[in-house]
Amino acid sequence: MAPDGAGWYSIRPVPKKAATTKSPARLVRPLVRGLHPYVPGEQPKVKGLIKLNTNENPYPPSPKVLRAVRDAVDGRLRLYPNSTAQALREALATLHGCGPENIVVGNGSDELLALAVRAFAEPAGTFRQAGKDTELFIQGDPSASRVQFFQPSYSLYPILAETHGATPHPVPLGPGYSIPSAAELRRGGVWDFRAALTLVTTPNAPSGRGYNTAELDALCQAQKGVTILDEAYVDFARENAMELGLRHPHVLVARTFSKSYSLCFQRVGYFVGHPDLIAAFHAIRDSYNVNGLGQVAAAATIADLPYYRRNIRRVVASRIRLTRELSGLGWAVLPSDANFVLARPPGPLGAGEWLEALRDRKILVRWFRTPGIDDHLRITVGTDAEVDALLLAVRQVQGPTKHR
Amino acid sequence: MAPDGAGWYSIRPVPKKAATTKSPARLVRPLVRGLHPYVPGEQPKVKGLIKLNTNENPYPPSPKVLRAVRDAVDGRLRLYPNSTAQALREALATLHGCGPENIVVGNGSDELLALAVRAFAEPAGTFRQAGKDTELFIQGDPSASRVQFFQPSYSLYPILAETHGATPHPVPLGPGYSIPSAAELRRGGVWDFRAALTLVTTPNAPSGRGYNTAELDALCQAQKGVTILDEAYVDFARENAMELGLRHPHVLVARTFSKSYSLCFQRVGYFVGHPDLIAAFHAIRDSYNVNGLGQVAAAATIADLPYYRRNIRRVVASRIRLTRELSGLGWAVLPSDANFVLARPPGPLGAGEWLEALRDRKILVRWFRTPGIDDHLRITVGTDAEVDALLLAVRQVQGPTKHR
Repeated sequence: MAPDGAGWYSIRPVPKKAATTKSPARLVRPLVRGLHPYVPGEQPKVKGLIKLNTNENPYPPSPKVLRAVRDAVDGRLRLYPNSTAQALREALATLHGCGPENIVVGNGSDELLALAVRAFAEPAGTFRQAGKDTELFIQGDPSASRVQFFQPSYSLYPILAETHGATPHPVPLGPGYSIPSAAELRRGGVWDFRAALTLVTTPNAPSGRGYNTAELDALCQAQKGVTILDEAYVDFARENAMELGLRHPHVLVARTFSKSYSLCFQRVGYFVGHPDLIAAFHAIRDSYNVNGLGQVAAAATIADLPYYRRNIRRVVASRIRLTRELSGLGWAVLPSDANFVLARPPGPLGAGEWLEALRDRKILVRWFRTPGIDDHLRITVGTDAEVDALLLAVRQVQGPTKHR
Repeated sequence: MAPDGAGWYSIRPVPKKAATTKSPARLVRPLVRGLHPYVPGEQPKVKGLIKLNTNENPYPPSPKVLRAVRDAVDGRLRLYPNSTAQALREALATLHGCGPENIVVGNGSDELLALAVRAFAEPAGTFRQAGKDTELFIQGDPSASRVQFFQPSYSLYPILAETHGATPHPVPLGPGYSIPSAAELRRGGVWDFRAALTLVTTPNAPSGRGYNTAELDALCQAQKGVTILDEAYVDFARENAMELGLRHPHVLVARTFSKSYSLCFQRVGYFVGHPDLIAAFHAIRDSYNVNGLGQVAAAATIADLPYYRRNIRRVVASRIRLTRELSGLGWAVLPSDANFVLARPPGPLGAGEWLEALRDRKILVRWFRTPGIDDHLRITVGTDAEVDALLLAVRQVQGPTKHR
């Protein structure tokens, strides 16, 4: 239907099914009715499976953290938690050399990513004119509604954009999952330097490729809109770009306690950046968005970093060994700066068949049907014993004579 | 500025300050920049204060719940929690005689209230046309954007509506905080029977007035849009209206573990209703919105209800005594079906001065500056010792000769 109203909007009929149904689904916004939610990696109910599918840390939280959480489990659970995670933000500010006003804590960094989309990108698209069997389609300035990200990267980004009614704007990475230069992006003609929000997974997921601060800086400097460096996996990398979040007023750095700090269960993530952008998160988040025991656990984690640095070194060592041995078995393993590797099996089995074959041997890995990587598996780096079990299973599936 | 585009939209200049500033706040959506966030009740840092200001339960979680949570604090914290709170939803389904598909669990019921606004009400209002110093003001069918609620009720509702860009639509309660009949609402001319979303706090907060199921049923039956019965305090009341959420496809019942179940710290709430509406929450919530220890705590709570029923009876008994004794001191105390009372001091001190006078005596209560109730204090029902301390402080402030 051609837009009227000077290109700002068009009015179109509601799809017949939704308009005439007696189902209460008719009361749900058309935008929401059309969503395809994010499918998280499987959390198996069967015991004894080796979980290499959701990039969890194979090592538990530190004994001091476990003790701090247990010690907090008493009558205080009846009280509301601190609504701004004040003590945790102060500890994080000391860690990163900034102030608590530079930090917002979320119910996992996923919550903060969703809030970022709502804080910075305008909805556009379908709105409802209830009861009249028509919908309003709104199209303003495309850049104001764009949530831009590289392809492939964290598959949640387009879903967050769509949930809000903003426009997902995927742009391919360069060769070997590299970030194209500003000049290359300009030549490509797809990248939007004025996008309201740009999300960069660094190190990249699912490829594991790390980026250096200089190239991220160049990308940030070329952007006019808010730019988030999503450093979920950065503790496993050679360098991080936290300084960019503190130097550039339009740049935010995203961190999580779920990966290097073994706290998935407790849902704690945080963003660091300019107080004016951080204030936007505080304005729209739930008052008590971070549970109290999560705050306790995260603060205790910050107080026991040497424990985690040791485990990070172990994961990196296991990653190097896994990469070497899988390569020796004929797999094409991408160099990784994260706690997982993206690897292409040598055939004849396809990646989907490998997923099943490993699952039959009680090992879970992740397979994305995304074009371009659907011939790869993403394998989380486990303990050395888990890596051994994976390699054994791979050898069993490939057979003794292959690739030797 | 007069709307053009057949009344659908108008284009207006961005306020000069926001458009010309160098502050990164210019990158925040105009809608978000204009918000006034919810101010939660104070969580004091000083020890020894008696907290009667945020309606927390004065009694701790059951020993079995504390044990269950402590027992779960181990290496499992490194793993993601169940993304649908499956075990908890199954326990709740058994409790309420429905299926898990009738239930969604949230990071506190506040999260679910925010999700409801985003699932059912269309944004309208100001959108940005970036970089051109203009904004688009969109106005569709008013009902499609309306978040309707009685005044006074939970003060978060209008804030959630504004955060989303929907339209808060407050309608006064009847005399003594009663719910007007459908005929009265029709005569009043303000109530919108077609509002996309209607939120009813039952028992009402901050008045404490309870409503019977028949009058809530009549209200629900008159509504065309989604209607949420927010039963945060219902365990302290004489009856609840859960059956309406299971009988009417457009009605949802909101519950929380924060009040009667003493779990504020852990952020767990849930909604019950038709699977088509519940599915809308699952479509837009974060994948791992409920932290794992919160799920453990809530499931253990459901398994130990007699403990909580005993405490609820104690709170109700203390509420009756507090009401009687405060009334004896000349206060006008509204009858309450909740774990708090709304009470008007006899003077000469105003409610704001009473807030300070009680604070000086280490007792925190809540004062809302909302017109119509700004001469009242909302006082949470504490333990008997806390009630005694409050009454002693009241007598000290009033002086020995007054109202005797």
